[in-house]
Order: sequence, then C-alpha cells, then structure tokens
Amino acid sequence: MKILVINAGSSSLKYQLIDMDGEKVLAKGVCERIGAADGIFTHKAFGKAWKSEVSMPDHTAAFTQVKKALTEGEGKVIEDLSEVNAIGHRVVQGGAKYDRSVVITEEVLQDIDAMKALAPLHNPPALQGIAAATATFGVDITQAAVFDTAFHQTMEPQAYMFALPYEYYEKYGVRRYGFHGTSHRYVSARCMELLQNKPDARIITCHLGSGSSIAAIKGGKVVDTTMGMTPLDGFMMGTRSGGFDPSVVTFLMEKEGLTPKQMDDVMNKKSGTLGISGVSNDDRDIQAAIERGDARAKLAWDMRTYQVLKIIGGYIAALGGLDALVFTAGVGENQPALRAELIEGLSYMGMKCDHEANAVRGEERLITTADSAIPAWIIPTDEEMVIARDTAALV
Amino acid sequence: MKILVINAGSSSLKYQLIDMDGEKVLAKGVCERIGAADGIFTHKAFGKAWKSEVSMPDHTAAFTQVKKALTEGEGKVIEDLSEVNAIGHRVVQGGAKYDRSVVITEEVLQDIDAMKALAPLHNPPALQGIAAATATFGVDITQAAVFDTAFHQTMEPQAYMFALPYEYYEKYGVRRYGFHGTSHRYVSARCMELLQNKPDARIITCHLGSGSSIAAIKGGKVVDTTMGMTPLDGFMMGTRSGGFDPSVVTFLMEKEGLTPKQMDDVMNKKSGTLGISGVSNDDRDIQAAIERGDARAKLAWDMRTYQVLKIIGGYIAALGGLDALVFTAGVGENQPALRAELIEGLSYMGMKCDHEANAVRGEERLITTADSAIPAWIIPTDEEMVIARDTAALV
Repeated sequence: MKILVINAGSSSLKYQLIDMDGEKVLAKGVCERIGAADGIFTHKAFGKAWKSEVSMPDHTAAFTQVKKALTEGEGKVIEDLSEVNAIGHRVVQGGAKYDRSVVITEEVLQDIDAMKALAPLHNPPALQGIAAATATFGVDITQAAVFDTAFHQTMEPQAYMFALPYEYYEKYGVRRYGFHGTSHRYVSARCMELLQNKPDARIITCHLGSGSSIAAIKGGKVVDTTMGMTPLDGFMMGTRSGGFDPSVVTFLMEKEGLTPKQMDDVMNKKSGTLGISGVSNDDRDIQAAIERGDARAKLAWDMRTYQVLKIIGGYIAALGGLDALVFTAGVGENQPALRAELIEGLSYMGMKCDHEANAVRGEERLITTADSAIPAWIIPTDEEMVIARDTAALV
Repeated sequence: MKILVINAGSSSLKYQLIDMDGEKVLAKGVCERIGAADGIFTHKAFGKAWKSEVSMPDHTAAFTQVKKALTEGEGKVIEDLSEVNAIGHRVVQGGAKYDRSVVITEEVLQDIDAMKALAPLHNPPALQGIAAATATFGVDITQAAVFDTAFHQTMEPQAYMFALPYEYYEKYGVRRYGFHGTSHRYVSARCMELLQNKPDARIITCHLGSGSSIAAIKGGKVVDTTMGMTPLDGFMMGTRSGGFDPSVVTFLMEKEGLTPKQMDDVMNKKSGTLGISGVSNDDRDIQAAIERGDARAKLAWDMRTYQVLKIIGGYIAALGGLDALVFTAGVGENQPALRAELIEGLSYMGMKCDHEANAVRGEERLITTADSAIPAWIIPTDEEMVIARDTAALV
C-alpha cells in the first residue's frame, strides 16, 4: 500500500510518498513560496534531489507539481496516481472532539473549518491542502486527517484548564490542547518498546526544534504538555516567547500601542532565542555568537536550558517519578551540549550523562550511563511515518 | 526601641506598633475604606479590639486616627508620638535597584514614584502612606522602605528574563521581579535555623494566600520565584489567573472587545479559584461547595494543587534537589488537605506526610514523618516583624 503524506502550510506544502510494505519512503519534497511569483519546488528520490523555480499560484498548482514529479522524469517513482492508495494530511487543530486520526468526511471538513478560530494560521491551509488533493486525485481516494492535538486529548481537566473565567472555556473552547502530538506519540511509543514490560512507564518527551514542546506521558497517555491553546505556550523557542507573566501582554500593548494582532506577531515572530539574543533564531548562529563572546546569545542559551529543566522537573512531579527521558526533533537530536546540561541538571534524580554516546551524531541511542538511575534516549522523530501508518490503518 | 510598621493600600492602611525589646506587638489595627464616607477603623491592644465608623478622606486622616488610638483612650499604648523611634513602610515594587531595605530619602521617594509604571496599583499608595507619616510625625523621624521585591533580587538573568524582544527589558524594565519577598525571607531564614548547619540549604517556600507565590532559595538566596513583573504571574490564586498561554490574552481581547485595562481586570479579579468555580475566591466556600458535590469547585481545588505541585517539582530541578519545604500564609498555614496532597505528590522524592501533625492547627511545626527523606514545615509568616527589624537596623 502506498500512502501520500501531506503537510500543508499557508505558503508551503511538504509531501512524502511512503510504501507501507517495509515503511519505505519512495519520494519526498516540498513546494515553497506558494502564491508568490518565484516558487521553489524540490523533489527527492533515489538519493537524488531536483530543485526548480516554478510559479505555484495555489495549493492545487503545487499538487500538479507533486503529481508530475512522482509520475514523470528522472524522479518518477510510480506510473500513475492511481497507485497511491490513500492520502494522509497533517491537521494542526483537532480540538477536544478529535482524539484520534479519522477519514475525512464532509463533517470532518466542517469541524476543521469551525476550529480555525482556534488555529487561524494552521487549519485554513490544511483545508486548502485537502481541497487540492481532492482536485488532483478525485473524490474517491481515501483521505485521512491526522491531528497534532489528538494524542494530547487524554489530559485531565486539571492539566488542560486555564484559571480564567469558566465561561471562556464554554464559549470559545479556551483551554490547553497541546501540539506536536504526532511526534510525542511516535517517540513515546518507541520509548515504550525500548523500556520493555513497563506498561505504566512515566516518560517525558522533549520535542525541541524551532517550535518546541514537552509532554509528560504515563502508560502511553499524555498527562500534560507545554503548548496550550496555541503553539505559543510553554518555554522559549526560536522566535516564540513561550509563557510569561500575562500582565506583560497588556502592559506592552498599552506602552507600545499594539493591537492584539501586532502583539501576537511580537510574541510569535520576534521573541524567543531571536528576541533575547538579537542574533538569530538558529542554534548554530547562537553557538557561533557564544564562541565570539556574545553575552546575549549566551543568555538566550541559558534561559532555554533553564526553562526546559524546570519543565522536566515539574513533569517529574506531575508523573510522580520518571522512567525515561526522550529527546527528539532538530535541536533535541542535534544539540549534545543542551542534552548534557539537562541531564546534569537532573543528577538529583540519579541521572548520569554518557558524554561519549551523547556526542555522537546519528541514529537512535541511549545517552545515559549504565548506572544512571533513569535512562535518556535520543529517538529521531518521524511524524510522516505516523501519519502514513494511521492513514493505512484507516483505509 | 519602638517601630511603627505601615502597610498602605489605595483605600486601606494597616499598622503595627512593635517594641523591639522582646519583639512585642504593642498595638495593631487597620483603617478601611479610606476616601469613602463610611470608613472603618479597627484598633487592637491588650487583647482587646475597638472598631468604629469614621470618615477618613485621605491617608493623613487615617494617620490621625492611628495617632489618637495609640496615645489616647482605652487602647493607648504610648504617651506621645515621640516614643515612636522610626517608621517602616511596606513598598511593593523596588525594581532592580533595591535589593535591601533603605532609609527613605528624597532619592528613594523619586525612585518609588518612577517605578509606579511597573506597579500602578501598589506604589502610589505607599507614597501616600509615607507622605501621611511625614505630615503626622514630622520630617525628623527615620522612615524606612521595605520592598516586596528586594529579597528576590539575587535571581540570575536566566530566571528573571522573559523571552521577549530584549529592548522591552532595556526600555521598560520588563522582567521578573517577584513579590512577597519579605515573607519568603522571613520563613526561609527561620527554616535555615530549623535545619541547622546547612548553609547551602535548598528550600522551597510556599506563600499560599489569596495572593500566592513560591520561591526557590539556595543558601539564603532566591534562585527563582513565581510572581513576575506583576503579582499576576505564577499559579492560580483567589481571583488571579497565574500564568497561561499568552496568546489567549490577545485572543480574548479580540473576541470580547476588551481593552488592556479590562483584560487586566479579568485576569486579576475574575479568574483563579473564583473564575473556575464560579463560587468564591475563598477556600472555605470552595470546600463547602466540594462537599455539596460541586464539580467546578472541585476542579478549582485540583487545578491549584496540580499547578503548585508542578512548580515545586520545577524548583526542585532548579535547585538540584531539596532540603526543606515550607508552607506559610493564610492558605499555606490553614489547609491540611492541600499540604497533604502536595507532600503525597512528592513521595517520589521520599517525602512522607505526618498526617497527625499536619491536621493540628496552631503554630510552627514539622508535618513530615521522622523517616521522610526531606522535612516540610509550617512556618507562620510575619512580614511586619521583618519590616520592624529592618527599620530598627537602619536607625
């Protein structure tokens, strides 16, 4: 069975064609700058990559490029689109209703549309991606929605409610939903395999990338997670602030004369590592700046480490202990120094970093010593594979 | 030496006259509804209380009542105001400049005034209280300012900075200051005495009242605290939300058409235990409602316990372990169920609640068992005594 995985943003569309027989990625690529005159299309297959400049006025035009790349020319991996058995879409916000992946029906489309109030930047492009897929593949192909929020829907009210007037929860659904659920689900499931025979395992999964979140998971169910109603909440990220004194939001709006939309932009695009360092949102630039002696770059680094450490400590309390710690995603998989500082900070729990294993780049591995009271692993995430598996299971 | 301690709010003024010889409270009282026609004045001395209705148009009029009560009638404790050696004022916001108590000079007055941008509700009444004291006692008496923020000024930037654009820190002083510092200082100092010979002790002090904050303290210095630039930050309180996804602030302002000021009111006055339960901001009402089977009162209770537990866990990580846990203030001293749930939640650290000791109401006491890996104490706070001691030391 061949599954096409689609992750549609407002001006981008990522795809992977996966053969579920052996879970092999046949081809993948990305359409960038959709809607602009100078679009960029990248297709990868057979260990090669093809990049071209091509105007893609909308998501349907992007799908036309994907179709061509999959069925024609050097990067061709299938004869005809009919070989694709189903399409799985990443959808950011599934609200409280969707605690699992579903086949997309008219009702599901209406729900995704209704939930765009909660995810104005994310749900509309997902709908565009689904519409474009339907236009390209026809109405008969099975399409599935895999929600970023679904895995977190096991949280109890004490974890997902904000202490605001209750009417806002009833009226608008203001609460913690959590995101990156597909990633937390994938790496925690893999961690459960590694732990063996620990059905009630208490696991903390750190998805650290340009967007970052941490989840506390017990017996395979999410107890808590850092992202909230939106992906802004939690701790500092590349350009996002994470949580801070909510009075500062209104204070700055008044002082700077900012509208809610402008303040959102400040918090989402000008804050975090970029806002503190003034250098970059990218860890590599930050590390180079630290080596040059840049104090604010060092501050940004230390703030993030400290915030992550506090969250892990809080989740250990929420879980009543810890059986495993997992690092994943761009920063989580590729920042030995950050991981070492965090495990060092958890020495009060008897954790010991295996600095040699931690320094090696590469695949899944244990990065704590044999006598560490609790193991920590790097487990590379693969959200596309989860989307493909869910979609295949729904066909 | 006799010290008059003053805690001035916008429409209230609390006072205590303390004889530092034996640290004995000679008299105390409160002026309520200053500025309204129907003011209430309460004076306590010799184990008795006198309550009267009296109009106090301003803080100077309130001071006139205090003067009369101290020097005349049944509750008289001194012959003449000249017996008061100095006056200590509680000042909420001392900014980054004041890391200790100081004698009030023209420069200090100007600084307190300048910092009112950060504490618009709190610093102006303190200035009114100081001016009224000067009008009543004359310019020659020593007056001291004891700042709620001072004890927290040992925090490192990684703990006090918010991950917002750095310019807001430079321009407005947007950062974590922390409050209740006088209380955290008092109970942590007492805890250090109880621990004996642990100069580097790692202590978490939980000041739980209608306003609540928690501090992580190492070797007598604050490492972190929950309140931020304002007393809104941290976890849910009687009517305050504590921290939550900052995007929800802008979301609700747009949806509800709220100004920054109106949103501040929602977060400070209509949220927290009151907002969730819809019943009350008072724990006694909440417990009664829980007994009646009120689900939202139970949710409010569980949310607070859970949020406090997570913060304690996070601070254990920030401190790299824990040597003692302290509960203080109205809720902290008088809520056995909350303390028991929290200590239970910390059993992963080897903590064990002594349910018998925990159930007793009264004075300072150990509430963990002899074999608990870490002790927890109730230590009643006494902010007025700290203000008096600081003032006496400055004379």
